Amino acid sequence: MSDLPRSIRIHEEGPREGFQIEPGPIATQRKIEFVEALASTGLKQIDCVSFVNAQKVPGMADAEQVAAGIRKVPGVRYTGLWLNTKGLLRALETQLDNVGAIRVTASETFAVRNTGMNHEETWADQRRWLELYRENKLPVEWGYVMTAFGCNYEGHVPVSQVVSMVAGILELANEADVRLQGVYLCDTVGWGTPKSMEQVIGAVREKWPDLPIALHLHDTRGTGLANASAALKMGVAQFDTAAAGLGGCPFAGHKGAAGNICTEDLVYMCHEMGIETGVDLEKLIDCARLAEDIVGHSLPGKVMHAGSLKAYGPRC
Amino acid sequence: MSDLPRSIRIHEEGPREGFQIEPGPIATQRKIEFVEALASTGLKQIDCVSFVNAQKVPGMADAEQVAAGIRKVPGVRYTGLWLNTKGLLRALETQLDNVGAIRVTASETFAVRNTGMNHEETWADQRRWLELYRENKLPVEWGYVMTAFGCNYEGHVPVSQVVSMVAGILELANEADVRLQGVYLCDTVGWGTPKSMEQVIGAVREKWPDLPIALHLHDTRGTGLANASAALKMGVAQFDTAAAGLGGCPFAGHKGAAGNICTEDLVYMCHEMGIETGVDLEKLIDCARLAEDIVGHSLPGKVMHAGSLKAYGPRC
Repeated sequence: MSDLPRSIRIHEEGPREGFQIEPGPIATQRKIEFVEALASTGLKQIDCVSFVNAQKVPGMADAEQVAAGIRKVPGVRYTGLWLNTKGLLRALETQLDNVGAIRVTASETFAVRNTGMNHEETWADQRRWLELYRENKLPVEWGYVMTAFGCNYEGHVPVSQVVSMVAGILELANEADVRLQGVYLCDTVGWGTPKSMEQVIGAVREKWPDLPIALHLHDTRGTGLANASAALKMGVAQFDTAAAGLGGCPFAGHKGAAGNICTEDLVYMCHEMGIETGVDLEKLIDCARLAEDIVGHSLPGKVMHAGSLKAYGPRC
Repeated sequence: MSDLPRSIRIHEEGPREGFQIEPGPIATQRKIEFVEALASTGLKQIDCVSFVNAQKVPGMADAEQVAAGIRKVPGVRYTGLWLNTKGLLRALETQLDNVGAIRVTASETFAVRNTGMNHEETWADQRRWLELYRENKLPVEWGYVMTAFGCNYEGHVPVSQVVSMVAGILELANEADVRLQGVYLCDTVGWGTPKSMEQVIGAVREKWPDLPIALHLHDTRGTGLANASAALKMGVAQFDTAAAGLGGCPFAGHKGAAGNICTEDLVYMCHEMGIETGVDLEKLIDCARLAEDIVGHSLPGKVMHAGSLKAYGPRC
């Protein structure tokens, strides 16, 4: 496994992904408690809330209060998500470490159903967003290609379509004089397999050998860590994850939509394979158990239930 | 992914693994219903019951009745498990397709705690078993190395120890004039990672390049399909699995012990990667849902909740 990265970076998505999908109301203070616990584990970026319509996503109605209540720790970035200008303006009023991005969807049908915009309209919209970010002095760090590994409306997404979206992102960034850190390939609806990871990542890598690739994976059909493992073997070193496997996308057009791959399960696997994460696994397991306590039901993470291997002495 | 096998074989362990660990009583007729449903999916070998002490494992008290009630389908093998001579004699009285095996444990501490025998006693005992199988005209097909990827008592299990156990199995088989189909490496307590798969399988493969290797994996810490994927890439083509992710080992010395990797999740992943299994995924998903209905609670399988990708048209 010689191409394994020495270390990986993790963007924790649990609070935002999790609390927006939970049916019951969760006290603002508990959301804050969870974010603060995550910030003590060594995680460097935590997506805390989304600034969306409280009528549509009641779990995010207290986004401002959550953002205001967090006692920020130096060295940790606390981010939020927005889907429209109103959301961005709300985010800018908070103490969050807002970060811009270029977001496009490989499947045009998915884009139309999810955002109301076809590809042409999406590119124009992203151009507008880059302008807004510039005006508001927000850093723009990553491009995101949603549905890079399949789509519940279009089915198979051709690799060439993903490559074309990456090309568009790089062109747009260049045009706007933005220096991206790399591109996220997102398995938005959980279709990926180790084979499609190799195919899609391989195709992007072939065209842009030096472009850092990150992955946003959902463990919808159980292949989440298998996909991450295939990507690690290709040197991919950045992942979106959710503690305890919290979350799921309410807009994915699929009732079985699952959360991101589980943070502590990925961290466990990486540590056992000699890959550093900068995260304290035991503290992270405590966070996952805290998440179960907060949502009031069992969550899909495995390591938090089985325990790490810390007690069993040296390995590897 | 050029070393992927064209097809894999699956030994379904769900009924035995699952029904022995479930706390509540399950009606004999429902166990039979489940086995018969599994037999209609294309699975070729189903482990149905274990002939163990009903006091210790109440869920298996009706092993004989389950075995007697199954309407066998030609081409499917229905197996059982025994741990002592009494169990074997019970199995021989049934219509099950009893199969012998050589079973050893890489971790001596685990063996002592689990079976009361150290390595020397285990080899003598296995010699005795082979004699018993010969007397009773049972085929002996596979050798099993338990705790091949780690142990909750000894911790790290050296690769050399696994290689040594495989050597012992082959020697014993040779001595008894038994032609084994290959050797199962068992991640009995769920310590494996893609990296340790490569290390252990690689070491065995290096010494015996033509020896078929099979895997018995538990998804204790979420790496189950990642491990299977790493093994598939090395050409491993046989797996023990459990429909719906049923099961868990009550003797593993760990309360978080999880079941085998989930049959339909593995079948899904294989099919999406162009690997044949001979199994009808949709029927298998129905079986997994039936298993949830029978045990009366949610089970860890993912694809049965999210659905397959059948509805979405051609892929790969």
